[in-house]
This record gives sequence, structure tokens and C-alpha cells, in this order.
Amino acid sequence: MRTAATKTLGEDDVIKMLSTLSNWGRWGKDDELGTINLVTPAKRKRAVGLVRDGVSVSCARPIATNELAADTTIPPLRFMVDSGEGRDHDPPERVLARRGAAEFIGMVFHGYTITHVDTPAHYFWRGKIYNGRSCNLITSREGAGAESVDLLHDGVVSRGVLLDIAALKGRLMDSGEGVMPEDLDAAEKAQDVRVEPGDVLLIRTGYYARRLATPRHPLKDGSPAAHVACMPWFRERDIAMLGTDTHNDVSPATHPGLGNVVHIVALVGMGLWLIDNGNLEELAKACAERRRWEFMLTLAPLRLQHATGSPVNPIALF
Amino acid sequence: MRTAATKTLGEDDVIKMLSTLSNWGRWGKDDELGTINLVTPAKRKRAVGLVRDGVSVSCARPIATNELAADTTIPPLRFMVDSGEGRDHDPPERVLARRGAAEFIGMVFHGYTITHVDTPAHYFWRGKIYNGRSCNLITSREGAGAESVDLLHDGVVSRGVLLDIAALKGRLMDSGEGVMPEDLDAAEKAQDVRVEPGDVLLIRTGYYARRLATPRHPLKDGSPAAHVACMPWFRERDIAMLGTDTHNDVSPATHPGLGNVVHIVALVGMGLWLIDNGNLEELAKACAERRRWEFMLTLAPLRLQHATGSPVNPIALF
Amino acid sequence: MRTAATKTLGEDDVIKMLSTLSNWGRWGKDDELGTINLVTPAKRKRAVGLVRDGVSVSCARPIATNELAADTTIPPLRFMVDSGEGRDHDPPERVLARRGAAEFIGMVFHGYTITHVDTPAHYFWRGKIYNGRSCNLITSREGAGAESVDLLHDGVVSRGVLLDIAALKGRLMDSGEGVMPEDLDAAEKAQDVRVEPGDVLLIRTGYYARRLATPRHPLKDGSPAAHVACMPWFRERDIAMLGTDTHNDVSPATHPGLGNVVHIVALVGMGLWLIDNGNLEELAKACAERRRWEFMLTLAPLRLQHATGSPVNPIALF
Amino acid sequence: MRTAATKTLGEDDVIKMLSTLSNWGRWGKDDELGTINLVTPAKRKRAVGLVRDGVSVSCARPIATNELAADTTIPPLRFMVDSGEGRDHDPPERVLARRGAAEFIGMVFHGYTITHVDTPAHYFWRGKIYNGRSCNLITSREGAGAESVDLLHDGVVSRGVLLDIAALKGRLMDSGEGVMPEDLDAAEKAQDVRVEPGDVLLIRTGYYARRLATPRHPLKDGSPAAHVACMPWFRERDIAMLGTDTHNDVSPATHPGLGNVVHIVALVGMGLWLIDNGNLEELAKACAERRRWEFMLTLAPLRLQHATGSPVNPIALF
Repeated sequence: MRTAATKTLGEDDVIKMLSTLSNWGRWGKDDELGTINLVTPAKRKRAVGLVRDGVSVSCARPIATNELAADTTIPPLRFMVDSGEGRDHDPPERVLARRGAAEFIGMVFHGYTITHVDTPAHYFWRGKIYNGRSCNLITSREGAGAESVDLLHDGVVSRGVLLDIAALKGRLMDSGEGVMPEDLDAAEKAQDVRVEPGDVLLIRTGYYARRLATPRHPLKDGSPAAHVACMPWFRERDIAMLGTDTHNDVSPATHPGLGNVVHIVALVGMGLWLIDNGNLEELAKACAERRRWEFMLTLAPLRLQHATGSPVNPIALF
Repeated sequence: MRTAATKTLGEDDVIKMLSTLSNWGRWGKDDELGTINLVTPAKRKRAVGLVRDGVSVSCARPIATNELAADTTIPPLRFMVDSGEGRDHDPPERVLARRGAAEFIGMVFHGYTITHVDTPAHYFWRGKIYNGRSCNLITSREGAGAESVDLLHDGVVSRGVLLDIAALKGRLMDSGEGVMPEDLDAAEKAQDVRVEPGDVLLIRTGYYARRLATPRHPLKDGSPAAHVACMPWFRERDIAMLGTDTHNDVSPATHPGLGNVVHIVALVGMGLWLIDNGNLEELAKACAERRRWEFMLTLAPLRLQHATGSPVNPIALF
Repeated sequence: MRTAATKTLGEDDVIKMLSTLSNWGRWGKDDELGTINLVTPAKRKRAVGLVRDGVSVSCARPIATNELAADTTIPPLRFMVDSGEGRDHDPPERVLARRGAAEFIGMVFHGYTITHVDTPAHYFWRGKIYNGRSCNLITSREGAGAESVDLLHDGVVSRGVLLDIAALKGRLMDSGEGVMPEDLDAAEKAQDVRVEPGDVLLIRTGYYARRLATPRHPLKDGSPAAHVACMPWFRERDIAMLGTDTHNDVSPATHPGLGNVVHIVALVGMGLWLIDNGNLEELAKACAERRRWEFMLTLAPLRLQHATGSPVNPIALF
Repeated sequence: MRTAATKTLGEDDVIKMLSTLSNWGRWGKDDELGTINLVTPAKRKRAVGLVRDGVSVSCARPIATNELAADTTIPPLRFMVDSGEGRDHDPPERVLARRGAAEFIGMVFHGYTITHVDTPAHYFWRGKIYNGRSCNLITSREGAGAESVDLLHDGVVSRGVLLDIAALKGRLMDSGEGVMPEDLDAAEKAQDVRVEPGDVLLIRTGYYARRLATPRHPLKDGSPAAHVACMPWFRERDIAMLGTDTHNDVSPATHPGLGNVVHIVALVGMGLWLIDNGNLEELAKACAERRRWEFMLTLAPLRLQHATGSPVNPIALF
């Protein structure tokens, strides 16, 4: 039985996944796109065909600035370089000298609060990133010398599928709890949907709902996520991206001797791009109302060069 | 004749536009969305219906980091909070202590190099922003207390239309040169397309192509843009957003006694959201190849709260 | 009796101080230096004459980076632009390409944790800063158009005097508790020292010791400081700077209808520069050991142009 | 003859200096202070004894913000978190809600424009920093795990000596030109001063004067500095710090196969702390007027933890 097997996955089993689930070389030795290769024009057209109502829904969390969230030491920064203050009394010459209100925005978007994309360059295993490149390509001074987020310059437009595990279980999942492959199977059955190659798979654990209810709920208290046991399932279905309403690794770690095992197997082994810290609450409602858990998804990272990811606002269209 | 008339638009004529083209109150006294109200579910469905090939094209410029571009005093910042360096020789305990490569990203996205959205709160006229709110709502400490970019949380999905004025004229437009309403009419005719309510109108002057050819080409040497004389045209057609491959105001200013007149009339008077500093080069090629200048456009700003805009990567889908 | 009087200072009494203690015009109508004018070459020479042991002591708090302190939403930032990682295995060409380890440092130094100087431009009263200049000189875009910290480019070298009120009272002072003028008198007597014109006066409440003991001790729980009732005393003695181991205003506010009254009277009325958030623990020990509470003090702000202050590390020399 | 010898210093000769001039172990195997050990209380007292006039002079350059200087890609940042704008018309409740004008200040202080201290942790040689520690102690995430600038928390107070080589030569030195040991000898003789153990030695090449005259004068056009041939002289005299009005290494590099050789030998081999990018113009005038090139020097870095240096404003007192 798969359940028993997955529950006893040892470190060696996880390490083996890096070979058995590997996509290294699958799209050529120079490939940097990994699973994004699975999003073809035909796939995009099929995604477009899912739209019926013309209703769009964000899958991102709001970004509060200059405010601390749980688990954040550096909050998203916003500094105004000009404001509107006093413009109603500015003398004419000053009116002309002032420009528009504008701001500096800064953030360490990787972390636990901002919805963002991870490129394969975000993670390492034994000195390598996806497709066998050296870790030393990702430098302090130059940033990501390969597998940068700018590879997604034209965005990712594909079929999105939500598997709402919190709804399946009838409760918000707990810290340290993993979504198991049998949960994915059960959700597919309950929702009458099937995950297919090139899909952007979104998994709702309910973690963000819990966080909204208790805003200072710290991630160090743990979070649910897809268990590493799901990796063969993801590989078999050939998803293009995996997004969750958490940090995408069960916490506390299922395999503390290895670290964030989903990140390692997905990013390094499979070249599977991740969406961390999603907000799937409105999406879940929109799906439930329609009894339809598939939709067109558009995700457009900023065209940051030499970057291991980007903050992003994925848009589902029904 | 309109040409003659527009060429002699005085300051008073521009100021009058703030009344004659005003959308204040049109969608209620509490409205903050302005022309985005014109993007309805029906409009989105029609936009989706334009997709035939499943080909996506970015309308954003790449964002180089820690590099100076022309006209930028503060370049987009990228500081790594961890890199891949040395991970191939890290001892096991250090492997576990290091997290993923990650970066701080910071930028003053308003300005002359980054593709971004302007909300109505970005500009002021006689102490007011769109719909008559006080300029004092936009503060140094709290940011945009109204008309923040987070209003677009669910993205803008609509029909996009490119009017390729550079192609029409057969040359890259010059500094200080304005796109006139008769240019818009001529482009519509040449391209056999008509701009309609709720459209995201993109206007190509060729400025970014010139900039790519001479990367240090400074904006202080000027740039073309839509002339303020086009504002009645935009209002009549009821576009939802205006995007250009420049800063969206002719430079040197057509009306130096008033400042950036397109920004003032569009943002303050009409509540017309702008896309500044677009990259319409790939888009223009994609349109010309298909002899089709309309497409589905998805634009998803970051969900920044209290912000006068957001960097953005608009995606056209053919 | 002074005690009774000072304890019943009303808002009007504080507002009157802005006239009665005013230094506006005292050093000319163009003056920006305020009480720093009191530090003359003769004063500096006398300060030098106080040195006997050749022992130096910092009056600044350490600056932890990327760590939250109490009452801080934006911690001091440190981002490495290069590190030492992996240099032991860099190939020769990479050795040459890498430069020194280096960092970006950033901070909002005003606030509750970093030892810093306030210039008179930091505070306002009825639209004015010290010496009657308009508040509108301090702009979002250009910073401090007057009374910038760069005025202290050659540093402040003067006699420093510590009045150790915590030692006098035999306890760390409490939140909301004000140092009163009679405390200053008593400390002078107990320490056998007299505050004189041009001195940098440092007042120890013990707040930082309390904070060290409970690092997350939040300022919103309040802090002691010199009470505004001390302002006439400071003016009479003609001190050049006032430094405390707190934020320099009693919290909760003694006059909530006015705000930070010590800041207002000192900075705006008197042009008296402040040192906020000092660390007087080592200094107090050094003084007590020597039974001598006077010393040479050197304070050298960064030469920041257009700034309302600077982080600083004042050095006492015994 | 020394001249001939030094002019033909090969790479091997420089590498040998790392052994022959080494201070590793001199102050114990746990030492991090390096040559700062040479500044004793007795030395400080002697420094104090040099003060006669009570005149203080900055040795730092002004720091312009949000402005590009030559050779700078990231200018020092200043973002106001509140300004004075409009405070003259704020309604009462807003007066109370606004706090003082304040700013975020940020900078990559290492580089070519800001006067700053280098700690030994700033540079590496064959995987080591001063006293044999591993380069891997200086990490992207944690910063300087050893030899951080906070070691100088109590400041450096010592005798300062200016050797004015530009005055000696009667001209501003040229790009690529090295100050040679015989220049140091000649300046000592001409100025009738002798550099002694524990001194902070300041060398004026005139580079900053040239830069002031042509503000965009780029360092990539090169700069003068002390030649690596001076290192034995510095070691023999046992200086505590070396400061120059340049980046402290001749540019273009004298030994391009090794890199910044003065930095390597000084920081790694000798544990000799550097002051880069000084401003010695006012100092040179103050010295020449008095015909005295020795003075008391106080240097107080910010108490940045885990940092490889600090911006600083060294103060000379005559």
C-alpha cells in the first residue's frame, strides 16, 4: 500500500528521488526551464478554453509594507520619494518642481509571507542546481548566473487546477502535517478533476486562512505542505508548477537531516518551479461556487535578471 | 481641422480638459477604480475569445540590477541574502544551516526605466487626486491612503490593442514629438482595428527600440509620447488603461507651465491608469506577423498596499 | 518651590517655553548651528585638559543587523555584496574577479534603538524649525534643505558631563518617569560636578540597562527621560547637546496634546541638538570608578548631506 | 638602493611579504584587533598632549545622497520616512499623528566615494583572513563572523600624522602612480616629523582634490596610492592604521595577477586596518598653516555588528 510506504520514507529514499524523478537532460543539456517546457502553445490554448464567466481571482497575498508579519525580520519596505503632502498649499514654482508621488519598494520576497516564484536556482544539492550546473554560478555579487526568473519573461499561461485538501478533510490542516499522495487522489475524485501534464497545480492546506485568523501565527510554529512522498505523483502527472498556500515544505521538517526536501527534489531534481506562500482562499471559494476546480492561470514574474525568483500575483480566470 | 486645433492647445485648453473629460463621480463618489470600471466580465470574455495561437508575449522591459541605466540615479537593487558560493565544499552542518539562495530586491519603479503601473494617486492637480480626494491622503509615512495599486488585486484582464505609430510613420519617433489624434485614427485605419471601451490601449513610438540601440540614451534628451491633444480621443473611446513605450508624456514638455499634462489629465481628471515605460518591440513583431493588432492582455500588479503603482509584466496572448 | 511648579506645567507653560527659552536670532538670523555655537576652541582645549588616563569609552549601543529589536519595524539592514564563502576553492580567475567582502548597510536611525544625533530640522512647531525657517524646507525628495547634520562635519569635541540619575535614585527609572530639575541639582551635588556652557550633557536613567536585561522590552511600554520641566535648566546652563539613554522624551507623553515636548522645545525653540538612545552603562562605570563625571567627548556624525540626523558613536575619553 | 629594488618587486616578492611582514600570532592566536593593539592608553595620552589650538578638522568626504558619483553604481540612498511638507497647514490631529522628519539611509560604503574603515575581514588570501581564520567565516547570511568593525567600539584615539606627498612633489599625483618608501622618508624630512608605533598614518596624494575639480573623474581612469613597496616601511614603523585620500591601492594595479596588493598584505598579513577614500584637503591646510603635521586623531566607527567596515568621519584635533 502506498500510504504505508510513503509514511516510512527514509532519507535514502528521498535522496533516491533525485535520480528516479530527475529531469536532468530531459530537455537537453543546456535547458534551464525545467518543467516550464511542459507549457506549450497547445496547452495555453486549452487553458484559454476553460474560461466561461470572465471572472478573475488573485492567488497572491496582499503585501503590507513597513509592518511586521509573523516570521519576518525584514518587512517589505516602502519609502516615499515624494508624497502629496502640502501640495494644496505649494507655491506655483514648487508645484512644478515636485513630481508625482512615488515610492521605493524593497523586499526579501523569499521567506514566509510574500507570494513568490522559486526558480530552480533557489536550491542546491551536493553543489549542484537543476540540470547539473554548479552552485558557484549563483554568486553574492552577480546573483543567479543561470536559471534566473527572467526565463519566464513571457509569463506562464496554462491550465490551473486547485486540489482543496482543506475542504476534503473538512478542516484547516495542522502544523507538521503533510498532504499525502492519497489525499491528492481523493481530492481529484471528490472534485472530479484530473491533473495533467503542463498544469499549474495549486494545493490548499488552509494554512493561510489560519494565518489570517491569527496574523502573528508564526511559521516557526510549523506549517503543513505537500509531503515529499507526493513527488513521484507530481512527476508522473508532469505538472509545470506547484503552488501551495504555505512555504511548500512541511515544517517541522519531515527529514531534518536533509532540510527542505520538497524544495530539493522539486527544484534541483525535477526543475519544477514553485509558487510559495500563495493565497488560495478566494480561489477556493470561486471553485466551490462553480463546482469547477480548473481554470486559466496567468503568472507573470517581474523580469528580474539574475534573480532566483520574483514576487508575483498569479491570476486565475474562470 | 483637428490637427490645427490640437497643435495650438494652450494651457487653458489643457486645464479645461480636467473638467470636460472628467470622470469624477461617474462611478460614484467613493470610486477609486476610475477607468478600470470599464473592464467587465463580458469584456474579459471577449478578450479571451481573441486567443488563437496560444502564444504569449511580454510587454515589459527586462530589469537589470545594480547597473545604471540612462536617467536613473538609483538603479534597481539586488542584494543576495545567501548565494550558492562554496556549497560544494560546505561541511554537512553548514549544508543544513544554509538556506536557499535568495535576494533582496528594491527599486524606485516610477521613473524612466522600469515598466510599471501608475495609479491615479500618483498625480495631483490643485491639491486633488482623482474623484476629488485630498492630496494629503498620500503621505510620506503611510503611503497612498487611497487609490492604491492593491485595488487591482485581481489583475486587469481585457482586450489589448496596439497602435504602432512608429510603423505607421516608418520611423522611430523623435524626442519631443507627440502622437496626435490623427495618428491614432490613421493607425486604426492602417491596422484595420478599432479601439473600444474597456480596452488597454498600447501605443508604440519606437522610443524603447532607440534606447536599446543606444543604451545610455538619456530621457533628458527627451522622448516622444502621446500628445495631450489625444486625451479627448481616449475619453471618447473610453479606454481602461493607456500604455506606451515611453514615460507617457512628451519630453521636453509641451506645456512647461503645467508639467506632465498627460499624467495630470489622465490620472487626476479621468482616473485613467497608465502603463509607463513599456516594451512593445516583441509585441509589435507578433502583431505584424499575424496582421492582427488585438489580443488578450493580462496585467497583474504586485498586491502592494498603500502604493502609487507597481512594477509589472503585462502579458499579451495571441 | 520649583518642584511643585514643574509638576503642574500645563500645555500653555510648555508653549511659552518656546518663547522664553528661545535661541532664535541669538547667533544671527542665518544661524543653523544653534547651541553648537557654544562649543568654542577654548572649550575644546578645556575638554582636552580633562584627559588623564587615556581610556576611551563608547556611548553608543551596538547595532545588530537583520534582527528585530523591540519597537522596531524596520531593523538595521545588512546585505553582503560579496562574502568570503568558497574563496578557499575558487579557481584563480575567480579569485581575481572577486573583490573584498563588503556590505550594504541601511537603517532608519531615528527611532528607538540606534544611538543617533537629531538636528534641529528633525522637529517642527507651528510650521517652523529652529530660527524660524519654514517646515517646507524639509522635503520628501530633497531631504533637509537646512539644518542638516553635515553642519557638524568637523565633529563636536567638548567637555562631557554625565549626570547619573539612576545611581542617584539607586534604581533604574520607570516608564513614564521624568528626570526633574531638582534631580539634576541633586546629581550635581552628589557627583561634585557642575554643568557649564558648551557642555555635552548626558543623563542616565538606566533605561538601556533595563532594555539589555529584557531585550524585547518595548518602548510602547514607555520610557523615562528628562522631563520638559528641565528645559529652563538646560537653557540656563547653556548646554551644547543633550544626550540620554532613552528617546529623550518621557513616554507615555507628559503632554499628549502637544506630542514630544522635549524634542519640540529643545530642537525648535532652543536649537539644542539631541543624542537619542545612548548607551551610558560603560560610561557610568568608568565615571564611578574614577569618582569623576566629566571627560572629553568626541562625537563625529557621518557627513550626510540633507539629513535630519546621523547614527553616531560618541567617544568619551578619560 | 631601495628605489631600484622596490620598482622591480615581482609577484613572488609581494607574496613573500605575507610571511615576512606577518602579524599572525603576534598578539595571540585569538587576536582580531591586529595593529589596533598598538594603540595603548599611553599612546592616547600622548595624542591628547598634541592639542594646542582646540581646532577640529574632518578627514571625511561629504556624503551626497541619491546622486551619482563617479565609479558608483549604487549611490548612497536617502529616503524620507516623514518630511516637513505641509505641516504648516496640518489640522491638529494630524500634527499629533506626524512624528519628526526622518530618513532611511543606506549605502555600500566600501567602494570609491565614501570615507570608511576596512576591517581585516574585508580581504582574503588563499582562503584566509588575518591571523589564519577561514574565509568561510564571512558569510552572505551572517556577515563577518570574525574581525568585525564592532571591535573598535570604543573608537581609535591616537596620534595622527599626515605625510603630504602631493605637497612634497608640488603636484597632485597621477593615476597609476605609487607613493614609494623614499617619498615617505622625504616627506618626514621635509615636514620634520617621524611616524611612530601606534600612529594613524594619513597619506595625501591629492587624488581627492583632483576629483573635486572634476567630479565625474572616474576611478576606472585610475588613482594613485601608497605602493605595495611601502609595506615593509609601515611594518617597521608599526603604524596602527593607514589612511589615504584614495582607495588605498594603486590603480591600474601594479600586480594585476594578484589584485589589490596593499589590501592583501595590510589586511590579511599585517592585520593593518585601513581608512579608504579619505578627504585630506582641509587637514593638509590646517597642518601647513601650523607647520605641524601631527595631531590628535579620533575615529569612531558605527558599532555595526558582523560588518567588514563602517563609514566614518575621522576628526583631527589641533
